Amino acid sequence: MKTLNIDLGDRSYPIHIGSGLLGQDLIERHLRGPQVMVVTNEVVAPLYLDQVMEGLGAEQKSSLILPDGEQHKNLATVEQIFDALLRHRFGRTATLVALGGGVVGDIVGFAAACYQRGIPFIQIPTTLLAQVDSSVGGKTGVNHPLGKNMIGAFYQPQAVIADIDVLNSLPERELKAGIAEVIKYGLIRDESFFRWLEEHIESLLDRRSDELVSAIETSCRNKAEVVARDERESGLRAILNFGHTFAHAIETGMGYGCYLHGEAVAIGMCQAADLSRRLGLLNPAEAERVVALIERSSLPIIPPEALDTERFLALMAVDKKNVDGALRVILLETIGRATLPRTVPLETLRATLDEYGRESA
Amino acid sequence: MKTLNIDLGDRSYPIHIGSGLLGQDLIERHLRGPQVMVVTNEVVAPLYLDQVMEGLGAEQKSSLILPDGEQHKNLATVEQIFDALLRHRFGRTATLVALGGGVVGDIVGFAAACYQRGIPFIQIPTTLLAQVDSSVGGKTGVNHPLGKNMIGAFYQPQAVIADIDVLNSLPERELKAGIAEVIKYGLIRDESFFRWLEEHIESLLDRRSDELVSAIETSCRNKAEVVARDERESGLRAILNFGHTFAHAIETGMGYGCYLHGEAVAIGMCQAADLSRRLGLLNPAEAERVVALIERSSLPIIPPEALDTERFLALMAVDKKNVDGALRVILLETIGRATLPRTVPLETLRATLDEYGRESA
Repeated sequence: MKTLNIDLGDRSYPIHIGSGLLGQDLIERHLRGPQVMVVTNEVVAPLYLDQVMEGLGAEQKSSLILPDGEQHKNLATVEQIFDALLRHRFGRTATLVALGGGVVGDIVGFAAACYQRGIPFIQIPTTLLAQVDSSVGGKTGVNHPLGKNMIGAFYQPQAVIADIDVLNSLPERELKAGIAEVIKYGLIRDESFFRWLEEHIESLLDRRSDELVSAIETSCRNKAEVVARDERESGLRAILNFGHTFAHAIETGMGYGCYLHGEAVAIGMCQAADLSRRLGLLNPAEAERVVALIERSSLPIIPPEALDTERFLALMAVDKKNVDGALRVILLETIGRATLPRTVPLETLRATLDEYGRESA
Repeated sequence: MKTLNIDLGDRSYPIHIGSGLLGQDLIERHLRGPQVMVVTNEVVAPLYLDQVMEGLGAEQKSSLILPDGEQHKNLATVEQIFDALLRHRFGRTATLVALGGGVVGDIVGFAAACYQRGIPFIQIPTTLLAQVDSSVGGKTGVNHPLGKNMIGAFYQPQAVIADIDVLNSLPERELKAGIAEVIKYGLIRDESFFRWLEEHIESLLDRRSDELVSAIETSCRNKAEVVARDERESGLRAILNFGHTFAHAIETGMGYGCYLHGEAVAIGMCQAADLSRRLGLLNPAEAERVVALIERSSLPIIPPEALDTERFLALMAVDKKNVDGALRVILLETIGRATLPRTVPLETLRATLDEYGRESA
């Protein structure tokens, strides 16, 4: 087991990464009182809930199974958790355990942030995306019909337990969606990691343990270094949203659940690379390497035809990363170095939206 | 105008206290962007909303009027604010202004804490209770059918503007409810302030400006000193809840809205003083002074007959201040010195619940 410490002063916490972690007493180590509620969803519950519950020595333990899917990532589901906690008379030292992917982690983390103004929570991410993304950064929250993640809080877990064994039950499509975010870390700040990925992408797709542990650790370390310098997303941290302004537009425009988040990010990164090239930042050969690695991961690289340029622009305007309504996009200078969000000329953005993917499609 | 600085590191903020403050440009000074939404309720709106909106030079200003009353202090009302912010496409630098009493402040502060994971907010408390209580401490949140303030966040405002002129429109009953919390500060940590109150209580009830400014300033300073040492309520801060374990039971048991919060606190402080006396902490003469000052403020001192001892105990057991289900109460050692929460013998607590108020009633 490798343990990566996320250094955030009095909100620091460890990420444990390895094989066979669910069978250990890792949860126990991080409890603050005798009450524990494990929250998961109907897909993950049959696979891992019994194992987690049996391993728990807590005096008062209970579980809650949420419906699966991004369409349930809303305040109504958060209220279900509040109801369950109150029915059990759980107090301020109770611990919530989020057992599931990013959606479960986001919902449960937000419930923990708000229940009695904040109770401890532990994350057990069961998707690659959640292990490399929501493990670090403290972002929690739910969607609103008018936009993704519009309601939420910055709230840090007590610990993250990333057991790579759970990835064996992950559908192929979700594994690849996680790889999209892994590639992102290489693109925005770690050129040598990007090269490592170009060499090892097939091993990752084959779920080889050593490569998975390495990729998760390097991804989390990269994210942690960014977050440590900018916990509340006032500056540098924005680079983590590389590709996401496009991706959020795709997810909102096509309806939550049509594209997996990582798939939308894969397309968004290709669009952002194209925009960077058009603006004279990224050289054409590097832009091709970006698309090539994403394509080798069997991830989508072309935006959905249903979203024409005007619709895309309208959807991007409500993205919360856009300060005061101006359209700002994170660009690439080279592979391994992203810019802070920049206001881009509308005509260049239109060119990317009009032409990228259509030319080659 | 007096300005009290609440020192919380990078979350520090000023409380402006005085007369005629709504006519000044105090809001403007604390904005971070061009978007402002003033949220108030249907009782306060006709009195002060126009004045506040006209004084605002912000480019994009709007207002939202909530229904009045604690029964609307719930997640559904918070969602109304999210809906309004999103309809206006307000971004992360938008500022929410809470114009109203404690309920409005709690709801709007929580909405600010959660909208896009936190946007700035400014409080303009329009009741004495809100000026001396919710102005300091960063507690925000809403109720759940199973308990008060069960859902919330610690979140600090950019500034508080406590204009004593607004107290002229405050109903008598609400003024007195605010005085209950003012008395609390004397009881828990400021014996000389308690003596000052014994001398000036009639002037306060007459709403004399100098006495109001003094009482608000001393109350806020006392609360600020406690909060600065314990922002997230892990220890010392508990003394601010003196009388509140009883009060929450009264409010929940009688239904929100039957007793004003300050009225329930007034009764709760009398019960806590009685319990302190029975436990040999507070001497009987001081216990009488506690009840006497509260009574001179025409505040209730006797719990409602409808709540018998068993019902009271059941209601107290779900109060979130009780760690892991054990009954803990804040007591008085003398006037001006409260204890941290202590586990009290059940039979003594029963004696207070059985006998206090019944003997003299």
